[in-house]
Amino acid sequence: MCSPKVMRSVQERIEREGLPSLSRRNFLQLGAVSALGALATSILRANGVARASSNVEVIDLSHVFGTNIPTYLPDEKPKREDYVTVEKDGFYIQRWTYTEHAGTHVDIPAHFIAKATTADVYPAQQLVGQAVVIDITEKAAREADSTLDMGDVMAWERANGKIPEGAIVFMYSGWDSRWSDLLAFRNADANDVQHYPGVSAEAAVFLIEERKVKGIGVDTLSLDFGASTTFDAHYAILGRECFGIENVANLAQIKGREAMVVVGMPRWEEGSGGPARVLALV
Amino acid sequence: MCSPKVMRSVQERIEREGLPSLSRRNFLQLGAVSALGALATSILRANGVARASSNVEVIDLSHVFGTNIPTYLPDEKPKREDYVTVEKDGFYIQRWTYTEHAGTHVDIPAHFIAKATTADVYPAQQLVGQAVVIDITEKAAREADSTLDMGDVMAWERANGKIPEGAIVFMYSGWDSRWSDLLAFRNADANDVQHYPGVSAEAAVFLIEERKVKGIGVDTLSLDFGASTTFDAHYAILGRECFGIENVANLAQIKGREAMVVVGMPRWEEGSGGPARVLALV
Repeated sequence: MCSPKVMRSVQERIEREGLPSLSRRNFLQLGAVSALGALATSILRANGVARASSNVEVIDLSHVFGTNIPTYLPDEKPKREDYVTVEKDGFYIQRWTYTEHAGTHVDIPAHFIAKATTADVYPAQQLVGQAVVIDITEKAAREADSTLDMGDVMAWERANGKIPEGAIVFMYSGWDSRWSDLLAFRNADANDVQHYPGVSAEAAVFLIEERKVKGIGVDTLSLDFGASTTFDAHYAILGRECFGIENVANLAQIKGREAMVVVGMPRWEEGSGGPARVLALV
Repeated sequence: MCSPKVMRSVQERIEREGLPSLSRRNFLQLGAVSALGALATSILRANGVARASSNVEVIDLSHVFGTNIPTYLPDEKPKREDYVTVEKDGFYIQRWTYTEHAGTHVDIPAHFIAKATTADVYPAQQLVGQAVVIDITEKAAREADSTLDMGDVMAWERANGKIPEGAIVFMYSGWDSRWSDLLAFRNADANDVQHYPGVSAEAAVFLIEERKVKGIGVDTLSLDFGASTTFDAHYAILGRECFGIENVANLAQIKGREAMVVVGMPRWEEGSGGPARVLALV
């Protein structure tokens, strides 16, 4: 990493010479951020420390994908077994069996929409975006059946400005603190109706149509609130070629910070979505 | 995305007013790149377009994870079946069964080293780094049993400067162009000995010990060349708590460019590694 001495010399050079100017042509070609990123890199490189990526802080928004995790339906628990082991075979590999919507995972349009885009061909460009975390923890603590609604979106925008185009918006309900307590996370009543927060269809449509967000994530088992039987948020999001993320972790760690989210979903063949590593770069 | 008009107004403001200065305290605290990133964002935000992440170009370094892909051993082909379908059940989910080292996937220390770190607890910070692509396509075209060796590393450094600390280094042998031809990718002879390029142990040790890279990726089925029986590169890399990536795609698209690599490996419980989405941000 950069030593304080190197950092100081970069800073002194900027104070002395100013930042190098950008040609308009390059600026317009690259877009402002790319151009400034390249500029930053060139300054660092001139000082012998082309380590742009090493300075990024990585925050993990993913739970462990395991056999004893909360699932929407009880028979969706993943299974694993040793295929070979270091002791017996010289190296170690597990064999997994699971359905696609367990753990921290992505919902792709084909999950709800017949003949829609599947995970293997869903555009990679869609999987990277600026994080917007909308906190509904107070409401969710009072009432498990809450939804992130238009009032929450408007309150966020009053405090933070317009949600940027291409963002990935997260509902932060605080539910991830229940993750290790399977019953509390699923929170089913005597009739096996689940109770936890989700996104309202109205808010989802607004975010996609008016704010052009790329995807919407939640820290609960479903984009819809647990008691939903009509799955309006799923249809609103997946019906518009956007994606959802369920069982997101650690949103408190990026709330209010500038973060880029990378949704590392393997290219599951004809997949309806599937397990993913969701990372925030701060 | 930013309209040309908005971009022009940002550029005109920079030409008119210069870039805002940074306080030394902030600069030293954040590190040069973060500070300049924040600076870029603040300029954009002042113009109402806080869209940093939207301007990143995403290049997919991952193959589709499917049932008919080249595998190291013939019985490692993943299987999938419909679990529910939109037509019959209202929504669509597949069930997967596979061993962990298929497709574009990560090797984690526990793959070769007893009691070493598993995929679920391998640090997220390790999975993001600057890309360094070392091209050995000429050598690989002449001789399939080639390795990326110290000569290739030194040649890269003579042309590009020292490999930065924290980089993720890729062997680009051109082998990914064979991906859809299962026999040509595995390239086994009459005795079922495979022939394709890999990384030499000496180069791997140098990259890790002297250049402090985070991980090493290859566009072939194995970190070691196909005919290896001693797996020296695997031991060199995984024995040093670094990771490997096998079956990387599209390295030609980032060769010679500034790129940050994000290795989106889900947190496979007690995993020896596993399927991952590998994305480059340019």
